Amino acid sequence: MLPRKDLFEIPDGIIYLDGNSLGPLPRAVPERVAQAVSAEWGGQLIKGWNSAGWMAQPQAVGDKVGRLIGAPAGSVVMGDTLSIKVFQALAASLKMRPDRSVILSDNGNFPTDLYMAEGLIDTIGKDYELRLTAPENVAAAITDDVAVVMLTQVDYRSGRMHDMAAITKLAHSAGAVMLWDLAHSAGALPVDLAVSNCEFAVGCSYKYLNGGPGAPAFIYVRPDLADTIEPALSGWLGHDAPFAFEQGYRPAPGIGRMRVGTPPVLQMTALEAALTVWDGIDMADIRAASIALSEAFIREVEARCPSLTLASPRDADQRGSQVSFASDHSYATMQALIDRGVIGDFRAPDLMRFGFTPLYLDEGDVIAAVDILQDILDNRLWDDPKYQTRNAVT
Amino acid sequence: MLPRKDLFEIPDGIIYLDGNSLGPLPRAVPERVAQAVSAEWGGQLIKGWNSAGWMAQPQAVGDKVGRLIGAPAGSVVMGDTLSIKVFQALAASLKMRPDRSVILSDNGNFPTDLYMAEGLIDTIGKDYELRLTAPENVAAAITDDVAVVMLTQVDYRSGRMHDMAAITKLAHSAGAVMLWDLAHSAGALPVDLAVSNCEFAVGCSYKYLNGGPGAPAFIYVRPDLADTIEPALSGWLGHDAPFAFEQGYRPAPGIGRMRVGTPPVLQMTALEAALTVWDGIDMADIRAASIALSEAFIREVEARCPSLTLASPRDADQRGSQVSFASDHSYATMQALIDRGVIGDFRAPDLMRFGFTPLYLDEGDVIAAVDILQDILDNRLWDDPKYQTRNAVT
Repeated sequence: MLPRKDLFEIPDGIIYLDGNSLGPLPRAVPERVAQAVSAEWGGQLIKGWNSAGWMAQPQAVGDKVGRLIGAPAGSVVMGDTLSIKVFQALAASLKMRPDRSVILSDNGNFPTDLYMAEGLIDTIGKDYELRLTAPENVAAAITDDVAVVMLTQVDYRSGRMHDMAAITKLAHSAGAVMLWDLAHSAGALPVDLAVSNCEFAVGCSYKYLNGGPGAPAFIYVRPDLADTIEPALSGWLGHDAPFAFEQGYRPAPGIGRMRVGTPPVLQMTALEAALTVWDGIDMADIRAASIALSEAFIREVEARCPSLTLASPRDADQRGSQVSFASDHSYATMQALIDRGVIGDFRAPDLMRFGFTPLYLDEGDVIAAVDILQDILDNRLWDDPKYQTRNAVT
Repeated sequence: MLPRKDLFEIPDGIIYLDGNSLGPLPRAVPERVAQAVSAEWGGQLIKGWNSAGWMAQPQAVGDKVGRLIGAPAGSVVMGDTLSIKVFQALAASLKMRPDRSVILSDNGNFPTDLYMAEGLIDTIGKDYELRLTAPENVAAAITDDVAVVMLTQVDYRSGRMHDMAAITKLAHSAGAVMLWDLAHSAGALPVDLAVSNCEFAVGCSYKYLNGGPGAPAFIYVRPDLADTIEPALSGWLGHDAPFAFEQGYRPAPGIGRMRVGTPPVLQMTALEAALTVWDGIDMADIRAASIALSEAFIREVEARCPSLTLASPRDADQRGSQVSFASDHSYATMQALIDRGVIGDFRAPDLMRFGFTPLYLDEGDVIAAVDILQDILDNRLWDDPKYQTRNAVT
C-alpha cells in the first residue's frame, strides 16, 4: 500500500514536491553508507573490491534499476553521470549508422543531452548535424538521414511525455537508432524497455530513484547489440580483463563494456540501499497514485489560484509525474513556498515545477501544499524583496 | 612530525603497504559523510546544492588538491574518473594541434590511459596514431608530428619516475602539448605543475590522497589556456550558465568548463574530509620519509629474501613512493602476506608491489613486514594451494 512514508526521512514541516530533482533520504541509507565507510573501506581496505563486492556492484545495482524500467537482467550498468552516458550512447549510435549524419532531438530536451551531442559532433569534426524540432513535430522529422533519435521521454519542464513505443517504431522504420533518456521516467512511471525495442536508454538515479546527490547514472543497451558496441569511452573497467593490464583495449562481453573507470563505491552503496524502497512495489500502482495526486493538485490549484496557468498537459496520459504552472511571479512565489516548507522548484523562464512521488506523498500533502500556495498568492507574499534574490542553483 | 597514524583508521594487526592503490580511511571521514547523508541530503534536500555548498565543491576541493601538486588556485577541478579526465585532456590537446596526428605515450603507462586514447582516436575516425615507445626512449621519440605527449609520471608497476620538467621542456621544444597523469604522484611526492609548465595534468584521489573507493578524479589546465579549451565532454555543469537551460553550449570561464555532469556529492565530501590530513604537511617532508622507508625496505628484503629481484629503480631519485619485487611465486606470496596482515598487491605478470606512505607508516612497520615476508619465503608458505586461487581484483 502507498505511500510508504515510514521508509523515508522527510524533515518535519516539509511537503517535498521536488523528488523529481533530488529524491529524499531513504531510511535504509545512513547506516548502510556508514558501514561501507567504516567496515568496508576502513576495515577491508583494498580487499573490499572483492570481499565487499564493490567491483560487481555497478552491474548488480544496474539489474535492480533494470527491473523498474523493463530491462532484462544483464542489460543495465551504473556509473558516471547521465551526461557521460548520453555521450557513450550517441557515439555508439553514430558508429552503427556510418552513412547517416543527423542526431535528431527536440528543443524541449534537457540541455546536457544537447550539449553532449554538440561536443561529440565537434570532436568527430565531420559534417554531423544536431537537428532540433518541436516536441510535437518529432514524428514527422524522423527522415532517412537520421542516424539516431535522442529524446527524453518526460519533458523536464512541462512533464509532457513522448510515446516511447510509437516513436521508437517510427525511428526503426526510418532506419534510425533510438536513444531514450529516462531521467524523469525511471521510478516515476512504468517503462518497458524490452517491449519498446529501443537500442539505448540512459537515466539518472538521484531523482525518483532517491539515490542521493550525484548518484551514478545508468545505461541500457539492447541485449542483442551489447556485444557489438565499440565503446568511445573505452576505459579499463570496460575491458574484458582489466586486471591483465593489457596494452590494447578489448571490450568486455555485453553491458560490461559500457563501464569506464573506477566506480564511485560510496555513492553506489547509497543508491543500492535506496533501491530497497522498491521491494514489492508495482510500477502500475505508482503510476495510478501519481496520477491521482497530480489530478488533485491541478484541480485544487485551478479552483483556488486563478492567476496560475497550467503548463503541463491536461491529459494525465500525456504527462509524467510532475505538474508545472506558469505565472508572472514564479520565481518569488516558489521562494515563498519553500520558505513555508513546500519544496518544489523554479525552471526558467516562468515555471513552478511540482513533482508527485507516491512513495512518500499522499493527498493530504497535496491539499496542504495548495493551501499554502493559495495563501501566498491571495496575500501577495511573493512581493517580499527577500524572495527576489536568485541562488546559484534555482 | 611524521607519521600521523592518529589521523587514520588502520585495522589492528594490519601493515598497510597498498596506499598506492586505495588509501586507508582517515578518521575525519565517517562523521563528515554521515553529516552529508543525514543533515545535508536528509535535512536540506534540494536546497543542499546551495546551502551545503555542493555545487561549489568540485572547484573548492580542486584547490585543496592543487596545493599538493603545485597548481594555483582555480586551475584544478574534481569530477568523474581518471579515465574520463584523460579523455577530456587528450581531446583538447588534439584540438590544439590540428596539423599533427600522433599521441605519444610509453608502453609502461597505465592501460586505461592508452585505452581512452584508442577510443578517442576511434571516435574521431581520422588518421590519428597512438604511438608507444619504451619509457627510456620517450625523449628521443618526441618528434615534430607529435600532437600530445601523454605520460604517467610514476610507473604503476615499477615505480620508475619520468623527469617531469625535462620531458615537458622537450615536448614544448617539439611543439607538442604535454599531459601528465599524476595518479601515483599526487600526495606521494612533490609536484610543481606551475614550474613544469605542462598544459594538462590528471590524476585520481583514492590512492595517496585517501579519498575512498571511487573518489573523484582531478584535472588541471594551465591557467593561460583554460579559457581557450573547447571541451569534448561539454556537459551542463561546464556551461557558463547551467541553470539558464540554454539550448546551445557556452563553456564556463576557466577550469569550470572541465566539469561535466552532476558531481558525486557523497564521494566529494569524503574526499574533502580526507584531505584535512594534509593540513600543515610539507610534501618535501613526505618525500624524505618515503625515501627513508623505501630504502629500508629494499635493504632488508635484499639482505633477507635473496629469491626476490628488485623491479624498481635502485636510485631513489628515479623512483616514486612504491617498490616492486619480482619472483616466480609473486601471486601466491602476496596472498600469503595478505593472510598474515601485510597488505601489498600483485601486478601481472610477476610483481609484488609495496607502497610507502609516510602519513601512516614508520620504519617499525617496514621491518615487521619484511620479517613476515622472510618467514613466508624461508618456509615456502606460498606453496599452500589456498594461495593459488585468483580473485577478480588482484
